[in-house]
Amino acid sequence: MRLMEDVAHLKEFLSSIAIFGGLEDSTLDRIVSMLRVETFPIDSVVVHEGEIGQSMYVVRSGQVVLYRKGSGQPAIRIARLGPGQCFGEMAIIDIQARSATVVVERPAVMYSLTNRDLFQLYNDDMPGYVMLIQNLCRELSRRLRKADAKITQTADAAGDETTQIRESPAK
Amino acid sequence: MRLMEDVAHLKEFLSSIAIFGGLEDSTLDRIVSMLRVETFPIDSVVVHEGEIGQSMYVVRSGQVVLYRKGSGQPAIRIARLGPGQCFGEMAIIDIQARSATVVVERPAVMYSLTNRDLFQLYNDDMPGYVMLIQNLCRELSRRLRKADAKITQTADAAGDETTQIRESPAK
Repeated sequence: MRLMEDVAHLKEFLSSIAIFGGLEDSTLDRIVSMLRVETFPIDSVVVHEGEIGQSMYVVRSGQVVLYRKGSGQPAIRIARLGPGQCFGEMAIIDIQARSATVVVERPAVMYSLTNRDLFQLYNDDMPGYVMLIQNLCRELSRRLRKADAKITQTADAAGDETTQIRESPAK
Repeated sequence: MRLMEDVAHLKEFLSSIAIFGGLEDSTLDRIVSMLRVETFPIDSVVVHEGEIGQSMYVVRSGQVVLYRKGSGQPAIRIARLGPGQCFGEMAIIDIQARSATVVVERPAVMYSLTNRDLFQLYNDDMPGYVMLIQNLCRELSRRLRKADAKITQTADAAGDETTQIRESPAK
């Protein structure tokens, strides 16, 4: 699908997002040329938990909700994302089952980028690729710090003196 | 401090660890030449929660425990790590306050790598650097998936239908 906004505007939007921050103008141009635009009506499902994913999404407009399966119905809502927020980043570096189902809550326009796009960037623009992957690493690190803090908080509130955020040593 | 084992043995050990996996032999040689060996007696503190960190550690032998502050005493134990496990990886890509205090539970030998070492690798061996940072990204992604699963599980067990693993949209 064709871009719904001019390139300068889109580049400005992208560079305001952490994982696209600090990129050279030429790298942003490459990324813009790779992005696909997808529109989703209300209640449509963008990705299903458990599916193998190969693309990440940037919400341009609208709103989506992320759910994870619990033991019963309904599923557990883990996040609500809007313009400028991303999901599925893990899929482009690490092809794995989607960790959540994403449902459109307000009609949404999204830009998507696949692991193939990333590989093309690797081939065509190594410094740009390195910058992007470093940004991604920092973003995952930031989220992991928050997740670990939340897990600790919950254990603390429950009066547990131990919780497990990493696997134990083999012996 | 000098290496306490021969280089071939150390390289074999490193390549068995996810973040050093798949590296070229020449990259492993560079990394080995950068590593510092540190020995820690029982009950010593390797890093303190809240301090600014610039190095990651690989446990070669011994055992350490990671604690996070809770609302009271004692601190909450979040992990126990042994040979072949790492901590502090986030510090070398993202200089931030340490997210846990690490205490030695069994006398430990550790290899450490700093963000400066990483920068030197970037300058001297770009393909090796890219491989390492990709490995790091995958490792963070793997941990984040587990952390998110744990948060969901806890919400599920508590009968909560929502939890928050990401910040909400601005509006």
